[in-house]
Amino acid sequence: MSANPPTCGFACGTILVGMKFSLDNCKSVNQNLLPVQGVLLAPYIETLKAALEMGQYIVPESSINLPSDTKALEEVEAMVTKKVSSDLRYIFVIGIGGSNLGTKAIYDALQTERHNDRELVFIDTVSAVQLQKTKTIISELSKPDELLLISISKSGGTTETLANTEILTELGFEKWGSEIKSRLVVITDKDSEFEKSAIARGVDVLTMPKVVGGRFSVFTAVGLFPLSALGVSVADMLEGATSIRTSCLNLDINFNPAAQSALVAYQAYQHGQIVHDTFVFNPELESLGKWYRQLLGESIGKAVAGEGDTGRVGIVPTVSVGSTDLHSVGQLYLGGPARTLTTFMISTTDECTFVTPTERLFETLAPMATGKSTKQIMDAILNGTKTAYNKASLPFMEITFDGITPHELGAFMQFKMIEMMYLGRLFGVDAFNQPAVELYKVETKKLLEQ
Amino acid sequence: MSANPPTCGFACGTILVGMKFSLDNCKSVNQNLLPVQGVLLAPYIETLKAALEMGQYIVPESSINLPSDTKALEEVEAMVTKKVSSDLRYIFVIGIGGSNLGTKAIYDALQTERHNDRELVFIDTVSAVQLQKTKTIISELSKPDELLLISISKSGGTTETLANTEILTELGFEKWGSEIKSRLVVITDKDSEFEKSAIARGVDVLTMPKVVGGRFSVFTAVGLFPLSALGVSVADMLEGATSIRTSCLNLDINFNPAAQSALVAYQAYQHGQIVHDTFVFNPELESLGKWYRQLLGESIGKAVAGEGDTGRVGIVPTVSVGSTDLHSVGQLYLGGPARTLTTFMISTTDECTFVTPTERLFETLAPMATGKSTKQIMDAILNGTKTAYNKASLPFMEITFDGITPHELGAFMQFKMIEMMYLGRLFGVDAFNQPAVELYKVETKKLLEQ
Repeated sequence: MSANPPTCGFACGTILVGMKFSLDNCKSVNQNLLPVQGVLLAPYIETLKAALEMGQYIVPESSINLPSDTKALEEVEAMVTKKVSSDLRYIFVIGIGGSNLGTKAIYDALQTERHNDRELVFIDTVSAVQLQKTKTIISELSKPDELLLISISKSGGTTETLANTEILTELGFEKWGSEIKSRLVVITDKDSEFEKSAIARGVDVLTMPKVVGGRFSVFTAVGLFPLSALGVSVADMLEGATSIRTSCLNLDINFNPAAQSALVAYQAYQHGQIVHDTFVFNPELESLGKWYRQLLGESIGKAVAGEGDTGRVGIVPTVSVGSTDLHSVGQLYLGGPARTLTTFMISTTDECTFVTPTERLFETLAPMATGKSTKQIMDAILNGTKTAYNKASLPFMEITFDGITPHELGAFMQFKMIEMMYLGRLFGVDAFNQPAVELYKVETKKLLEQ
Repeated sequence: MSANPPTCGFACGTILVGMKFSLDNCKSVNQNLLPVQGVLLAPYIETLKAALEMGQYIVPESSINLPSDTKALEEVEAMVTKKVSSDLRYIFVIGIGGSNLGTKAIYDALQTERHNDRELVFIDTVSAVQLQKTKTIISELSKPDELLLISISKSGGTTETLANTEILTELGFEKWGSEIKSRLVVITDKDSEFEKSAIARGVDVLTMPKVVGGRFSVFTAVGLFPLSALGVSVADMLEGATSIRTSCLNLDINFNPAAQSALVAYQAYQHGQIVHDTFVFNPELESLGKWYRQLLGESIGKAVAGEGDTGRVGIVPTVSVGSTDLHSVGQLYLGGPARTLTTFMISTTDECTFVTPTERLFETLAPMATGKSTKQIMDAILNGTKTAYNKASLPFMEITFDGITPHELGAFMQFKMIEMMYLGRLFGVDAFNQPAVELYKVETKKLLEQ
């Protein structure tokens, strides 16, 4: 929806992009300052526009080219044609962190939309409980075509993913012999050892550009292949991403939701709002919140360039599910210290609806629910919560989906990935690295090599 | 369990309780100060001991009597006998917040332990997506005995729970007529309107003591009935709770893990560790972390008594799953500002095990995983993480389960509920109320009544 013209600019804080983004209620943020601060982002916006114009994968920001990379999409589609028949029932996604969070976010969000019995099963950490479930599934299948194993490791060296890949491949081998190799697809960096190793063993491979980081990789084969194999319209998802990209690169901050959102989060942090809560009011969006949790946590939580350990920054990303978590941490949010910037997320439409009957069993209890639809109740709770947040002077932004669809999810994810690049620039950190992760990996490696 | 003598006292920071609790690695905490500060808790420990001696439900602290309340357990068992036959397949737990988080924590933790095909389905918020799933389940059942509806609302006025109860009862009524009423059990406060209303309509009821708060209610019928109907040994769970209770009321802080844990969390907060991360290394414990998230968030996040809005406190409770979240927020934890006190949790034993084969498909990648079991890999990652946390001077406590069993889970939950009472006392807040929750409820009610 870049086709939809913005109905109002930064002054009123809402930009229509199909998906709507609003920061009307960030009262603690000085909205007058935002366009001024936004000017500081202008040179970086030019960098992003240049990366887009080049259309190649040269800098980390080049990930914004992914939604319009038709060649990569064709490779994914060809692999789907090769591997997916009507027999396919289970797709095991073996990957952790950036290798599965985006896929899981979309899978969980679209759980009511699928029109086949195919399931994604996510195997991320090394867990006997998780593996036992996959073993049971394999034992109940009758032929290899019912199963697809997708092993995803950007570096090719992720311990958990490699261990799980070997264990699951062996389970398949025990049942079907070497035919299992034809049911395995590897996704990894172009020209990596994993790619070479797979090719040498006759295992099919899809690659991703090395310069695209794991948490920015949902629009590479990492997300596209499992979702497409499942039956999700990834073309719609990419179109959603493309449609919002132009406005997210707009030099006029009044019409750039990604820059606005980054500026709000940055300013809120300076005012002590060190927590950013993604508060979804459709429970099926919890995993999307967890995808953003990685994007925000890993991109911004680090030392400011040139300042060493004394200049560490980081926003604590949390995910809340409405109305469930109002009954869990609502007291803390409304009654505790005001440390949180919130982004409420809800869909304007529901796939289906239920209504509290007018002839009730317990008609005297919660009488105001009588005759109300699930959507009416949820809207009332969200709006009641927003009023309470306003009265408590808790700042919040709001994202409204026009239905939970591949298109809207694609737009949201592109919006947030560009927001994160701006946020990294504002904080003065490299949004694309994760040096501290090595600290535990080195220690773990030592222990495993003993 | 209290049967195990403590092998070392507070000085070394480990107390053996079956479940082990360690604070060896809270280096930023002044451990010498803890026994001194612990003296301040002595009068309150006496209050708890008195509440236990009375054996009745008079003060909020009386919840510590629940694990030894044989009469309440008998009532639950009688209801299980009445409602549960071998036909039972689905138990719908309709409740939100304190009404379902404890049950879900134990259900998810014990997912490999069950020896029947019975499933709990949790219906908490008002969600058409959730309800659609339950509708599908009901449509596939052949007789009412295959289904049990448990409607749990302490106050009897929870909008979501009442709406869901009416919607689900109507779905059952459409299929089986008024017989559905015999498949519904209400759990609510003794002498509440919900109890009276249920009795008047011939619906079976179990009650809980009014003085026991929702987040302290897992050992009432709220947790016991659905878990017992599922087939979990709730007697073992209660025995676990009883076994740790004595040490958690020990006036000698050197042998009181609940007081130690509270003192550590309190002292860490004063040093700027405002986040408490429950970092579980068995993924099936994530919901147990979410149970604690409510307990901590809702008990402590509020205004200090007598200080009004200027004296607000609150620890931000987060839940992380190892090793998954090392690939998501590990960078923030290890590379960002040191704001987090962590409690690592892991089981010493696994129900089952898998081994990375020695004959591998990709033998050159992550070679140190070759021949290692899932447990060995996970232990190496946890220990590597602990070393990295120590090097980064990040304080952490550690809880080690002797297997993930009803006994260990019961012990853990009792330990944490008593810890929370101490923490409330140290912060000077009422750990048992949640006044701010009314702020959004009032606004929601206005909107629903329009």
